[in-house]
Amino acid sequence: MKAAFYEGNKTIRIGTFNQVEPKSGEVQIKVSHTGICGTDLHIYLGHMDKRVTFPQIMGHEMSGIVNAVGEGVTNFAIGDCVTVMPLDSCGECPACQAGHNHICHNLRFLGIETPGAFQNYWTVPSHTVLPLPEGLSLEHGALIEPLAVACHDVRIGEVQKGEYVVVLGGGPIGTLIALVAKEAGAEVLVSEINPFRLELLKELGINTINPKEKDIVEYVQRGTKGAGADVVFEVTSSAVGAEVMTALPRTRGRIVVVGIFSQPAKVDLHRFFWRELKLSGARVYERIDFEKAIELASFGKLPLDRIITETYPLEDLVKGFQQMEAGGKAMKILINCD
Amino acid sequence: MKAAFYEGNKTIRIGTFNQVEPKSGEVQIKVSHTGICGTDLHIYLGHMDKRVTFPQIMGHEMSGIVNAVGEGVTNFAIGDCVTVMPLDSCGECPACQAGHNHICHNLRFLGIETPGAFQNYWTVPSHTVLPLPEGLSLEHGALIEPLAVACHDVRIGEVQKGEYVVVLGGGPIGTLIALVAKEAGAEVLVSEINPFRLELLKELGINTINPKEKDIVEYVQRGTKGAGADVVFEVTSSAVGAEVMTALPRTRGRIVVVGIFSQPAKVDLHRFFWRELKLSGARVYERIDFEKAIELASFGKLPLDRIITETYPLEDLVKGFQQMEAGGKAMKILINCD
Repeated sequence: MKAAFYEGNKTIRIGTFNQVEPKSGEVQIKVSHTGICGTDLHIYLGHMDKRVTFPQIMGHEMSGIVNAVGEGVTNFAIGDCVTVMPLDSCGECPACQAGHNHICHNLRFLGIETPGAFQNYWTVPSHTVLPLPEGLSLEHGALIEPLAVACHDVRIGEVQKGEYVVVLGGGPIGTLIALVAKEAGAEVLVSEINPFRLELLKELGINTINPKEKDIVEYVQRGTKGAGADVVFEVTSSAVGAEVMTALPRTRGRIVVVGIFSQPAKVDLHRFFWRELKLSGARVYERIDFEKAIELASFGKLPLDRIITETYPLEDLVKGFQQMEAGGKAMKILINCD
Repeated sequence: MKAAFYEGNKTIRIGTFNQVEPKSGEVQIKVSHTGICGTDLHIYLGHMDKRVTFPQIMGHEMSGIVNAVGEGVTNFAIGDCVTVMPLDSCGECPACQAGHNHICHNLRFLGIETPGAFQNYWTVPSHTVLPLPEGLSLEHGALIEPLAVACHDVRIGEVQKGEYVVVLGGGPIGTLIALVAKEAGAEVLVSEINPFRLELLKELGINTINPKEKDIVEYVQRGTKGAGADVVFEVTSSAVGAEVMTALPRTRGRIVVVGIFSQPAKVDLHRFFWRELKLSGARVYERIDFEKAIELASFGKLPLDRIITETYPLEDLVKGFQQMEAGGKAMKILINCD
């Protein structure tokens, strides 16, 4: 079988090796599609070399078909369409003991700390596997993981029907947050500077603003009759995002930090005091978010087709990374691992 | 009658003028005691000259006795012991309309935007007046306002019995937060560097740490078996406070920003993501907090006597400011305005 090995320094080697037979409690999945996540890009760019052991198979946004099950696995059968919630927690640390397994102190993220899904066959613990419902395509199945991130973020933000929501950053996660918030009945504005993404967001029926062309604070003030936004999602991980996120919310408004900041950012803490703002960090998802994502995707209410801008074969994985690195005309890039 | 006029540039003039007769809906209070707040110190030091009109009578932490009532005031009578919740909101802005009058967009803070209580007689809208229960001394009555701040902060922090609470900064507000959190059943640690305050906190039975002598992150880790603090109150308004506040909480722990930051501070937003931390800004109080403060003070459960480290006559107000500016041996300084 084939797999894509990250060997450091922007190098991906397509190699062959024996597929891993499922041990007790494991499931072997014939991988169909695997999306390239921003985290994979960070790994490719070398930003996470301290966390990753070379050579590493990346990839954790996937869909596939059960090919074999290990001893004791009774809830999956060969031929089942599935996706994976790629979190393996220790069950013993203070976070797990408090019921927050998804932010386990010793979390092993499949595809970062362990081999991932940029390969033909992926063997994972059965507790990480979720069934995909009939009628959901395997392409859309590969979007469940990032969609679960968006569902988690919107849940943490406690978005209510009729609320005014601003999403800073219209990449794949920002766009999915916008779609989930819109589906929840919110009025959504996405701030983005990439012209391709702005155009795509408009096609998806989402209100957009290019903050290089218009004053976003003034725009939101006008749009909310001087009150400010109910919820702001910071998905840019940028200094300017950290700055503007506090200028937008209403009194007691909520900010959700989704972006992964590589260094401390300047934040207007006075504004938190002045307007009694609330900020929550959001990380990955819980099972309830995965289930919500599967539900949303299978009802066909979200325009997931339009999110997928490119599909490459496994051999061309590096092309996908190069396209993401260049920015430009990309939203979600899938890899066909079949 | 006498009043203390702030005339800018650290200048306080004790002058005389005619007392203001209460108009319809107003109450005239013979002021007993007025505490010096950190905000008064900021005004005295010239930090708020843009907001304050000279000459200004400061002071908003007070107690007194009703001396006269205006037309239509039926809920107070001459001789009643009272305190004042010094917030005058517009009732029309988006914050007021949403029920958050205490953070009204057009808030007039009595003693900042209007004359305050460093005078013999203070005339205020009757809706700002609250009765003090029998048996509560007028000295303690002057502590109700800062105690209400602490009650508000602890409420915003959702402190629960048995939780591990860290208060960064052991000045008057930090100390009152510690006492209110302790009264709520929390295990409290106060971080402070002033030796006088550290000593006083110990006498009050509060666990303390001097972060210049011990590593507070390690100390809290050890004290919580590796989990981290449930709630952290940032009351220092300092860069180091903004830095350490994110290093202390447990997974999904809460941070309450009480300190008033004069400029943006560097904040570790990655930690918010990593541990799904929550941060809330807290400003002044709501009526429920004032009522809670009166209840706590009148049950005599809090060692309020020990919080008052000095009482000066109105003529010596400037001495109080000088003592606060110098730091050192002060906690709450009261002014006898009788």
